[in-house]
Amino acid sequence: MTLAPNRPTPMAGLPTGPHHDSSERYVSDPHPSLGETVEVSMEVPADAGITDVGLRTVHDGEAAFIEGRSEVIGSRRLWHFELPCHNEIVPYRFRCVGSGGPQWLTGMGTVGHDPQDQFDFRLMTTGGPPSWVPETVWYQIVPDRFARSGSAVDAPEWGWSCDWHAPIAVGPRAMTQIYGGDLAGVAARLDHLVSLGVGGVYLTPIFPARSNHRYDATAFDRVDPLLGGDEALIGLRRACDDKGLRLITDITLNHTGDAHEWFRAARTDADAVEAGFYRFSDHPDNYACWLGVASLPKLDHRSDELRRRLYRGPDSVAGRFLAPPFSLDGWRVDVANMTGRDGPIDLNREVRRAVRATSDAISPERWLVAEHVHDVSRDVDGPGWHGWMNYSGVSRPIASWLGDPELLRTLTAGPGQDPRGGEEVARAIDEVRASVPWAFLLGSMALLGSHDTPRWRSLAATGELADVGVGLLMSLPGSPCLLYGDEIGLLGENNEQARVPMCWDETSWDHDLLARRRALIRLRRSSPALARGGFRWVERTADALAFIRASRAERLLVRATRYDAPPLRCPVSIMGDEAELLFGRDAATSARSGDQLVFDAHGPSFAIWRLQPDP
Amino acid sequence: MTLAPNRPTPMAGLPTGPHHDSSERYVSDPHPSLGETVEVSMEVPADAGITDVGLRTVHDGEAAFIEGRSEVIGSRRLWHFELPCHNEIVPYRFRCVGSGGPQWLTGMGTVGHDPQDQFDFRLMTTGGPPSWVPETVWYQIVPDRFARSGSAVDAPEWGWSCDWHAPIAVGPRAMTQIYGGDLAGVAARLDHLVSLGVGGVYLTPIFPARSNHRYDATAFDRVDPLLGGDEALIGLRRACDDKGLRLITDITLNHTGDAHEWFRAARTDADAVEAGFYRFSDHPDNYACWLGVASLPKLDHRSDELRRRLYRGPDSVAGRFLAPPFSLDGWRVDVANMTGRDGPIDLNREVRRAVRATSDAISPERWLVAEHVHDVSRDVDGPGWHGWMNYSGVSRPIASWLGDPELLRTLTAGPGQDPRGGEEVARAIDEVRASVPWAFLLGSMALLGSHDTPRWRSLAATGELADVGVGLLMSLPGSPCLLYGDEIGLLGENNEQARVPMCWDETSWDHDLLARRRALIRLRRSSPALARGGFRWVERTADALAFIRASRAERLLVRATRYDAPPLRCPVSIMGDEAELLFGRDAATSARSGDQLVFDAHGPSFAIWRLQPDP
Repeated sequence: MTLAPNRPTPMAGLPTGPHHDSSERYVSDPHPSLGETVEVSMEVPADAGITDVGLRTVHDGEAAFIEGRSEVIGSRRLWHFELPCHNEIVPYRFRCVGSGGPQWLTGMGTVGHDPQDQFDFRLMTTGGPPSWVPETVWYQIVPDRFARSGSAVDAPEWGWSCDWHAPIAVGPRAMTQIYGGDLAGVAARLDHLVSLGVGGVYLTPIFPARSNHRYDATAFDRVDPLLGGDEALIGLRRACDDKGLRLITDITLNHTGDAHEWFRAARTDADAVEAGFYRFSDHPDNYACWLGVASLPKLDHRSDELRRRLYRGPDSVAGRFLAPPFSLDGWRVDVANMTGRDGPIDLNREVRRAVRATSDAISPERWLVAEHVHDVSRDVDGPGWHGWMNYSGVSRPIASWLGDPELLRTLTAGPGQDPRGGEEVARAIDEVRASVPWAFLLGSMALLGSHDTPRWRSLAATGELADVGVGLLMSLPGSPCLLYGDEIGLLGENNEQARVPMCWDETSWDHDLLARRRALIRLRRSSPALARGGFRWVERTADALAFIRASRAERLLVRATRYDAPPLRCPVSIMGDEAELLFGRDAATSARSGDQLVFDAHGPSFAIWRLQPDP
Repeated sequence: MTLAPNRPTPMAGLPTGPHHDSSERYVSDPHPSLGETVEVSMEVPADAGITDVGLRTVHDGEAAFIEGRSEVIGSRRLWHFELPCHNEIVPYRFRCVGSGGPQWLTGMGTVGHDPQDQFDFRLMTTGGPPSWVPETVWYQIVPDRFARSGSAVDAPEWGWSCDWHAPIAVGPRAMTQIYGGDLAGVAARLDHLVSLGVGGVYLTPIFPARSNHRYDATAFDRVDPLLGGDEALIGLRRACDDKGLRLITDITLNHTGDAHEWFRAARTDADAVEAGFYRFSDHPDNYACWLGVASLPKLDHRSDELRRRLYRGPDSVAGRFLAPPFSLDGWRVDVANMTGRDGPIDLNREVRRAVRATSDAISPERWLVAEHVHDVSRDVDGPGWHGWMNYSGVSRPIASWLGDPELLRTLTAGPGQDPRGGEEVARAIDEVRASVPWAFLLGSMALLGSHDTPRWRSLAATGELADVGVGLLMSLPGSPCLLYGDEIGLLGENNEQARVPMCWDETSWDHDLLARRRALIRLRRSSPALARGGFRWVERTADALAFIRASRAERLLVRATRYDAPPLRCPVSIMGDEAELLFGRDAATSARSGDQLVFDAHGPSFAIWRLQPDP
């Protein structure tokens, strides 16, 4: 083993202080109803010298304080509190009195000052995500690029067809290049997904449009005939049911394409009801649009008729496709961060509440996951999205730790993404986790890349680091999502190149990589701790990150290193005296040494161990 | 001078890194209009090795990046950015590239990780506070307790009269004890306020009620006859105008008294329109009320008629008293944190927007300052309150640093307030400041105590520490407020005792204290830096806090110590080579020593120096 010189053995992050998360281990009902009283618990090592703990919550906007009771179980002291869940969001934090001054335990850990409320723990009484979401691993498909069914369809007037093996075009022609994948093609290839072990399909948009990405819808009332039309979606739904797969797709509430039938009506007649769906500063040629792109006119949610057509009630677009015969399991809500926001107008809250009401009325088991690429926390104030695409707390921190510095520069606006050490990465992950209710985090989609970014294998600095990143993806809270072809080694250095057609020549696949992904997905899907377990850091150094995921049934240690790092040494009193390696390279070992359990690895490494039950 | 052993000279907090605040020094228009583009600047020492700075903002919910230009002025490099103000709230932060990894400069200073947005700097395009607010020092008066006019008024059936020198009753009888102060009494004593130097009067409620605190209004359409009725308020308004004093009072939107005419009508007839003003779970005996207190039924803002009567339009309660002949300069909004919040209902945003619209329609120079006793930041999302009573960022941090530990225990809910060292106090102040727009902070009321707390002189651990606290009160951003009688040394160990009648026997006054308060208020009112200047820490240790307040015209150093502390040594390159003592004990000195300017004091101490212009 190579030990870096002059580095202290990392002990600082060890779980020797107070801990709480809003997982099932510490909250009697993580999805309480309004008016319910839940038992909220926190723990400290019994010998930590904490003599008193209280809980502070906020009730109708006013702070309130609740006293608790404690008990010692093994090496731990647990404090229990009865927390009435009186509002849609129920914030709380703990005041811990020990030998030093009192400290607050918040989602960011313990602090010695009196903090603002933004990192308070939070329960939601508006329902958690659908019950099946936390166990689901997603497989994202761009319909034009996954598989052809062989049905002959004429190329539309806006596009040009190409061979499946043609290179992705460069420049504006890339958007109109048609490879001819369709929904029947997806349905025919589901065995590949089943073999990989994923549990759900996320399709980018399937409504008619004038580009291959289809985020410029021309209608919302039918599936694009190029993809096989409504019947093909119904067929894919049935095929997914047969294979036990969930199915969601994209809805865009922020804008339409300029060829949308509504926008055409709006431009033709300033008095048409559809003219109120958009905001014209000067009819018909000047109007609000997405980031100034004239072909994507922005919807104006002040229009009652727009709300009715798009998402209010079962006959709206949002409602109709969640109900039979389409029975989508949910929507990925495109540009949710911008929807309803236009200068002084901000109707985002009204939109997300209305969409949620429509979805819940069909079934509370339908999922609404929002595209939101930075801080989503201010949009979590009651019923709305169940979760969001967690770029800010998963993709970006992991990329900043493991990504290629040159490609990081190309990410997001301006200067791109900065490389960071593990301490900063952990802090970024913590702030995101601590800013939202735990149920919202479990309702999120975790990802390393999508149709909007470079492929992860290209963005990661090396193949080994790509493996480390996928390990973290599968281990952090949230429902993980892979982009089609990631499992066989497809590359793509930018968002256009990422949409490379799926390769169906299995002799070209990286079968070792596929086997590693299968093994990890199998573990992810079978582990209650990875699906719903709480989260607690054990190690946060520049080159090593380790944490415990613990559910009621299971306690796992997850460790990732990007280079060789000193071994992780943990007291047996906390970790137990042995651990079972569930996933990891051969070099990942654990052994008892005196009163410590030692976890070792040659970096880059990723490993998951099953720990003994709480001592 | 006594130097504590083994303490390093405090240099850590020195302003050698990047700095920005949203004050006039760094923002070309701190109160931009919607659509305006402002120049936003930040500075670093020219030799700090910062090679590039960029600005990140959020536009319609989407992050955007703006490049800037830099120039060197003296020892500083300034970076300038053109920031379009497109939304009601315009957040931004800076990415600073230097020899280490890139850092973000947020309201909390520089951080090496990629943060969430909660501490981004923020501009508001919905207007700042009235122009006169930042320069105003307030004087809070409980009308029953300040001065009698001599008009004979019969005691009401709910109360009992007592002599001006009688002790405050203990227990439930305290609430109905009537000393007989009235508005004409206030008007007759305004010369005392003028002599003290304050600029405005804040009266606790003046509507009819059934308690001496009057937060249980029985009507909103007239001034309590016990206080002299409408004519007395009009008279006080005129008297204040004559003396150049502002005048505000309390409005309660959260609840009424159970003897309110609306509540009586509501209880009498379940079909009365007023029955919709309250939320009855079981008419007429079970209804929502403030913290479960049956005599304070909570208003239900879903009632359109309630909104119309209470705050929508010029004929509403809120409108009528802001207009002639009453012409109040604003409202202190009682329990603003709870208003409109009742279980799953949260209409707080709608209420604050509607009140603001009513107020602005009468004049944008009317002030709305909200009672909000913890984290107000989520209630700052567009037009609404101009500011809030800053307990969280002024009273509580200062009390936790200088307060008597026993009395701190009696503050707020549960275990009370914890004593803290200066580092934690600074952190608490920072989080509050960084959570709200700068204009909202300047629109706030800063205070050390009120009718709801012990008097500051009783809460402070010693008289010297009380002086230090008042120094900080007058120096931190926000419009400072003293409780009547604080200036002459009145005591009161809890909220009831704090409402002791004003003492008009000048032979009993602490004239030295009065002179110190006068001097400090005079300085506060004449200093552009204290009124509107930015804020930057220079020193944050357990026993010493020092900061710079700098406007375009003036640069001040403020230093407070609670015990003897090592001298503060600052580079001449930043501080200039001499400083002028504007306020402080004789022992507060500054002297040049080599390339340092040294600020020294025997603690406890408080001093303000005028620094030379930026080098």
